Amino acid sequence: MQAQLIALDWGTTSLRAYLLGPAGQVLKMRSLACGIMQLPGTPRFVAGHWCTDGFELAFDDACGDWLQADPDLPVIACGMVGSAQGWCEAPYRETPASLPALSTALQAVRSVHGVDVHIVPGVIEHSTLPNVMRGEETQVLGILRTHPHLNDCLIGLPGSHSKWVQVQDSCLVHFDTFMTGELYAAVCEHTILGRTQQPTAQFDASSFERGVEVALSAVGQLGPLSTLFSARTLGLTGQLSPTQQPDYVSGLLIGHELSALSTALRQRLDGQPLPAIILIGNTQLCERYQRALGACGFADVSLAEQATEQGLWHLAQAAGLLQHTQLEG
Amino acid sequence: MQAQLIALDWGTTSLRAYLLGPAGQVLKMRSLACGIMQLPGTPRFVAGHWCTDGFELAFDDACGDWLQADPDLPVIACGMVGSAQGWCEAPYRETPASLPALSTALQAVRSVHGVDVHIVPGVIEHSTLPNVMRGEETQVLGILRTHPHLNDCLIGLPGSHSKWVQVQDSCLVHFDTFMTGELYAAVCEHTILGRTQQPTAQFDASSFERGVEVALSAVGQLGPLSTLFSARTLGLTGQLSPTQQPDYVSGLLIGHELSALSTALRQRLDGQPLPAIILIGNTQLCERYQRALGACGFADVSLAEQATEQGLWHLAQAAGLLQHTQLEG
Repeated sequence: MQAQLIALDWGTTSLRAYLLGPAGQVLKMRSLACGIMQLPGTPRFVAGHWCTDGFELAFDDACGDWLQADPDLPVIACGMVGSAQGWCEAPYRETPASLPALSTALQAVRSVHGVDVHIVPGVIEHSTLPNVMRGEETQVLGILRTHPHLNDCLIGLPGSHSKWVQVQDSCLVHFDTFMTGELYAAVCEHTILGRTQQPTAQFDASSFERGVEVALSAVGQLGPLSTLFSARTLGLTGQLSPTQQPDYVSGLLIGHELSALSTALRQRLDGQPLPAIILIGNTQLCERYQRALGACGFADVSLAEQATEQGLWHLAQAAGLLQHTQLEG
Repeated sequence: MQAQLIALDWGTTSLRAYLLGPAGQVLKMRSLACGIMQLPGTPRFVAGHWCTDGFELAFDDACGDWLQADPDLPVIACGMVGSAQGWCEAPYRETPASLPALSTALQAVRSVHGVDVHIVPGVIEHSTLPNVMRGEETQVLGILRTHPHLNDCLIGLPGSHSKWVQVQDSCLVHFDTFMTGELYAAVCEHTILGRTQQPTAQFDASSFERGVEVALSAVGQLGPLSTLFSARTLGLTGQLSPTQQPDYVSGLLIGHELSALSTALRQRLDGQPLPAIILIGNTQLCERYQRALGACGFADVSLAEQATEQGLWHLAQAAGLLQHTQLEG
């Protein structure tokens, strides 16, 4: 099947490359540990040029062979690659942000491969406190066509910096950020709580749910700065084993995130039922959120798939990047 | 003046040694970076014995010369030195915990110097979630005589793990812990927020107060997992300079701690005025808390001094450790 687009999801720690076919379907996918903060450092020849630029090296690792086979393939990329520390800065677009608004604001950077890499801008909301995203806007746009009733939903994107996005008439209108994933890592790796933890590959659902329950309980009202210490004291008193502690802490933090989110939603909704939730992201992490959302009273939670590649496809299409190959194809 | 007691405040990262005179006054004080997690590692002769034990080496560094001059001096120590990772475990005593209860539960460990080091037990509260302290109990006991109306006060001990202690008739009856200081360090050193921070020696009061205000505001209700991200977005939008970011984050976290604390207090007090606050600890950190407490509506905030050395003195006295030298003196 004829490839139509190279789509890159290029974040801080990882780079995922998709080769997409005529209807946007995934022909090939590659995952590399070449995020913008850990680019390759060894110079080499790329497309006949001596190359020292980490972005060029990573780009060549990700899809150099695809371009060699088909040098006219258009390329689009989203994520931190468009940040000030990225390959080429794609300035934020303000909310409300639509597919047309973002697709007409792609920033192109010329690769030594002789192709333009079109970078999707992030989105900024100038609320009481400003809020920003890079990459998640593309994922949200990726589910617009498959989920027609987004006006009534809240879209959750769990991760290092979890996002909760509201869409109104196909526009991103509001979002909140929680640094839950990054704080979880910092707490487990760089505080006293990590010293007694013994990580395992097996997810301990009951310890996770215990953490969620504590966050949602009366003592949880003292907030995560206080409840986190219970991972230590429950360990000291033999009520939480070293292998149970990581998932307990995960449950505590996700529980506090969702407790705060649902309290704010309930205030805004003033008695109306909580919205349906659509989760986008890593399957295992989404399953944790799904459990915790249930405990918070969210009755309707579903997972959306292939959001990133679909979002990049729609943006490339709206930007007219696919025209050339479509005419030729 | 005749020395009467060697009193050690021996925590995770530091060791403070006091030489106390006949009325408990400080004759000499030494501060060493020899907390129980960073003990000296180079073996040497101590009091005629070849010594490899880090606790012995640190103890000798702290007060070996004082003991050489006066080998009969009694020694008392509080803090993490009595934990399971310490020199000798002094099991927790339960709340309500009084001076007599703690002074009769000292644990002795024999040093190669030929003296017993008497270690003060920590305190545990078996509340909904267990809570523990080591060292702070001694500080609270240290202000019992100088502050007669503690029943009506809340005692705050800011630090890596801040404690808020209630005393009833000279007994520690309840306390809460917030991991604010340790989380502040983890956030600044091991998350994306640290990358744009530029630490300075100068305290930026207005950035600190801005952080406190955000924590106490409507957007603060989303909690620290959410508001912390504003340190990044205010930076990205040019509203918070790299040098302002550390104190802003400090204000955010302390603000969230005190907001949660005062909300819980107000619920419990049911309309009665907030209690007077007595702060014990590092002066600069106490000044930050004093500012933030003012913003939370606490009208009466004062600082207590020499709490640790006074607490160790009272405990040694109650345990009868001072008798010997008093008779001789």
